[in-house]
Amino acid sequence: MSEKKTAITPTRSADYAEWYQQVIIAADMAENAPVRGCMIIKPWGYAIWEQIQSYLDRRIKETGHQNVYFPLFIPLSFLEKEAAHVQGFAKECAVVTHHRLEEKDGKLIPASPLEEPLIVRPTSETIIGDAFSRWAKSWRDLPILINQWANVVRWEMRTRLFLRTSEFLWQEGHSVHATAEEAKEEAERMLKVYCELAQEVLAIPVIAGEKSEGERFPGAESTYTFEMMMQDRKALQAGTSHYMGQNFAKAFNIRFNTKEEKLEYGYTSSFGSTTRLVGSIIMTHGDDDGLRLPPRISPYHVVIIPIIPKPEKEAEVLAYVEKIKAELATQSFCGRPLAIHIDKRDMRGGEKNWEWIKKGVPLRIEVGPRDVESQSVMLARRDKEPQEKLSLKYAELVASTLSILEEIQKNYFQTAQKQLQTNTRRDIHTFDELKAFFTPKNEEKPEIHGGFVIAKWCGDTKTEEMLKELKITIRCLPFEQSGTSGTCILTGKPATLDAVFAKSY
Amino acid sequence: MSEKKTAITPTRSADYAEWYQQVIIAADMAENAPVRGCMIIKPWGYAIWEQIQSYLDRRIKETGHQNVYFPLFIPLSFLEKEAAHVQGFAKECAVVTHHRLEEKDGKLIPASPLEEPLIVRPTSETIIGDAFSRWAKSWRDLPILINQWANVVRWEMRTRLFLRTSEFLWQEGHSVHATAEEAKEEAERMLKVYCELAQEVLAIPVIAGEKSEGERFPGAESTYTFEMMMQDRKALQAGTSHYMGQNFAKAFNIRFNTKEEKLEYGYTSSFGSTTRLVGSIIMTHGDDDGLRLPPRISPYHVVIIPIIPKPEKEAEVLAYVEKIKAELATQSFCGRPLAIHIDKRDMRGGEKNWEWIKKGVPLRIEVGPRDVESQSVMLARRDKEPQEKLSLKYAELVASTLSILEEIQKNYFQTAQKQLQTNTRRDIHTFDELKAFFTPKNEEKPEIHGGFVIAKWCGDTKTEEMLKELKITIRCLPFEQSGTSGTCILTGKPATLDAVFAKSY
Repeated sequence: MSEKKTAITPTRSADYAEWYQQVIIAADMAENAPVRGCMIIKPWGYAIWEQIQSYLDRRIKETGHQNVYFPLFIPLSFLEKEAAHVQGFAKECAVVTHHRLEEKDGKLIPASPLEEPLIVRPTSETIIGDAFSRWAKSWRDLPILINQWANVVRWEMRTRLFLRTSEFLWQEGHSVHATAEEAKEEAERMLKVYCELAQEVLAIPVIAGEKSEGERFPGAESTYTFEMMMQDRKALQAGTSHYMGQNFAKAFNIRFNTKEEKLEYGYTSSFGSTTRLVGSIIMTHGDDDGLRLPPRISPYHVVIIPIIPKPEKEAEVLAYVEKIKAELATQSFCGRPLAIHIDKRDMRGGEKNWEWIKKGVPLRIEVGPRDVESQSVMLARRDKEPQEKLSLKYAELVASTLSILEEIQKNYFQTAQKQLQTNTRRDIHTFDELKAFFTPKNEEKPEIHGGFVIAKWCGDTKTEEMLKELKITIRCLPFEQSGTSGTCILTGKPATLDAVFAKSY
Repeated sequence: MSEKKTAITPTRSADYAEWYQQVIIAADMAENAPVRGCMIIKPWGYAIWEQIQSYLDRRIKETGHQNVYFPLFIPLSFLEKEAAHVQGFAKECAVVTHHRLEEKDGKLIPASPLEEPLIVRPTSETIIGDAFSRWAKSWRDLPILINQWANVVRWEMRTRLFLRTSEFLWQEGHSVHATAEEAKEEAERMLKVYCELAQEVLAIPVIAGEKSEGERFPGAESTYTFEMMMQDRKALQAGTSHYMGQNFAKAFNIRFNTKEEKLEYGYTSSFGSTTRLVGSIIMTHGDDDGLRLPPRISPYHVVIIPIIPKPEKEAEVLAYVEKIKAELATQSFCGRPLAIHIDKRDMRGGEKNWEWIKKGVPLRIEVGPRDVESQSVMLARRDKEPQEKLSLKYAELVASTLSILEEIQKNYFQTAQKQLQTNTRRDIHTFDELKAFFTPKNEEKPEIHGGFVIAKWCGDTKTEEMLKELKITIRCLPFEQSGTSGTCILTGKPATLDAVFAKSY
């Protein structure tokens, strides 16, 4: 059997981590910046992020959150106010200590020290908590629901484009409520929005649930998460929401007058999702020919490649192609007008074709002089083999584009769902079995291991230590609990909680 | 004569600078952050910025620029590469020197020093120049046209919300071209986009032109600007574009292969506009009752205030109000669907009314039970006196809303244009006259001074020093030159250049 030629080297099965980097290069999405751990997001990567932003921004506003902007810098003294929070972030902080440069011996050096060092926000609970203490005076002011699109910095030692970078882009939502129930509901509501983004838009199935104590956000009472399974069977957490109880309210003195004229602490929540979502799309849907974008998130739904063998044919081909574009552009897919791009660059058609395959565009249309004559097109779907092309009459094309896009969106979700289901085991009950499951069978391919295990857990956070040996963690306690009783996979004690165990990014 | 009661104290004529701060508080747009020189942009202020973003982002994309994202941090060594650039920004840089915090004697202190300090970007020419040197290999790669929406930091000693803050939000566009002409054209094209934003959307007339050498962007060959006149007759520069020649190309080794296979330096340009634009709207259109928003930039075109004197009337008033909203929402104003907000809060109608006056919403509609009966509404325009209300039949309202919005947009522009024309003098020809014009007549009101002077200038940058005494600068050499000859207002030498002289923000 001859090996199939693929656009990406290595293939996923040969070296998944390297394949990931190569897909990003091939699709021209991002590159490592000359600043340690930071990335440059290039136009194609950023356009995907803009699609995510556009959907999420609308959904977040629908829940009543209003956009705001808080400063990049946070005084050190703010960070110190919440004990768990500072512990969680102190090791990752970039610190601004000076505010001027001065030349000395022909070199620039930091000149004027700040009175108090500033940290570059790793997240904004503290500086927003301080504002909430000014804004939340009365029950009439509550709830306060805000959101910001911003950059944050968490100094990372090992970085990987989109998945883990020292600076990343995100949205962070924050709220303060009069009651614990409302604050908790808010965190749950926003997690639901994230799950819908993942499943309906990104075509990625998720397991939603609560984090164990050991995996909680620093300062939270509860952290909710949605976990995805990548093609190497590792878990990826792509966003979280948090119920903070009164921890930040007490640290920042967020107190309001109740209807009964009593001064009480508020309850806060927050939620965030990041450019990591772009990485999750690559890792879930990409194949050995590159990126595959679900139509709902693809910057272009359709790319049209005019094939012009002779200059004298150019005018008629371009006219036909413009006609197709204009006709398709009147349609909408899931609320977004079809985005059609005509690739008129002076390059060979085959080269262009492969470029759009690698960039993951759902539909490619090739049009040459013969297609103009027969009023047809050659249509290629990114969810089929690259050479598989469908000849369609013009009228058929217009009629079927939306349904084909729908099919592609579904196909990607179903493929990902099958991957998740096939590699999620519920029949593993002891620590030894767990260990065996997560121990690589082949030392040369340590990335090929089990997948997800859903098993009983007693809930004792001390037992999470045992998982370090296997390099796995409890990803979440799924909201969907079986309700059955059994024995804890770690201690053998009676247990009713279902937990998801996995390696993760 | 009794003094008119105004919503804002002090009035513009009593204390313009304090009036500005009070308008921002009254409209709840922003506040000073607990971090020196930084601001918190609150929902109303941010929503206005989002309108600016939405227009500009579309226009910038139409010119072929693609959005990207570059890192927040810039290595010190990058800044040093362009001599004029580093000189211009060294004094304003926030410097990151450490990447970890550690507890010592119960206090957090910066712990791990970075090998090379990083500056927080004051602008991104350097780090983008470095990327261009990798991306621009061949003439086929050119032009490269990119843009990013980002935060930047320029440490400022005296700050003022929106107008001058240590951190601000902006877009910065960058391009590299094969020829000087194209790079220059690009800078001119983008300035034109800014002028259209200002005049057509923000309803602010501008004088567009080139900066004198003394006022150029550090590292630029030419800087183009659009200058606005605020109500205190000071100039405000709200955005600039720059032709860099080969300065950055040489500093960052941006070289490409020409069609003739020769290795040549590229030509770069950049353009930026900031949250300062929000300040320009306040200062141009605001009155003694607060903000006045041109309809094209207002987050809401219309706010409807239901008046419910008795609970039993609530249902019918709300039903009527929803009907009005649904009907108006089918209309678009300048390409944006009408944004209608129903203010259902449990507050007195008068209080709500004043809140929306202060927030500057173009149209307010009050609806009580009697209006339901007569199928009419009370309409109030923000460009008229607060108590001036128009009773309109339902059908009339729907038919006339768009034309009234159009009128308001025009009114604001015309009022601002009159302010600019009335206070721009072309009959001042000597330095003594200039001095007299810019010397406050009343020592207690130093803010009341001349305005703009358009006069001849010889073009010798050394003469700009003379202006310091008057606390004025050359704002620009307008693109519209009279072409006449005369004598330089500073030196008395023969001169043909027209220049705009003014105090400025």
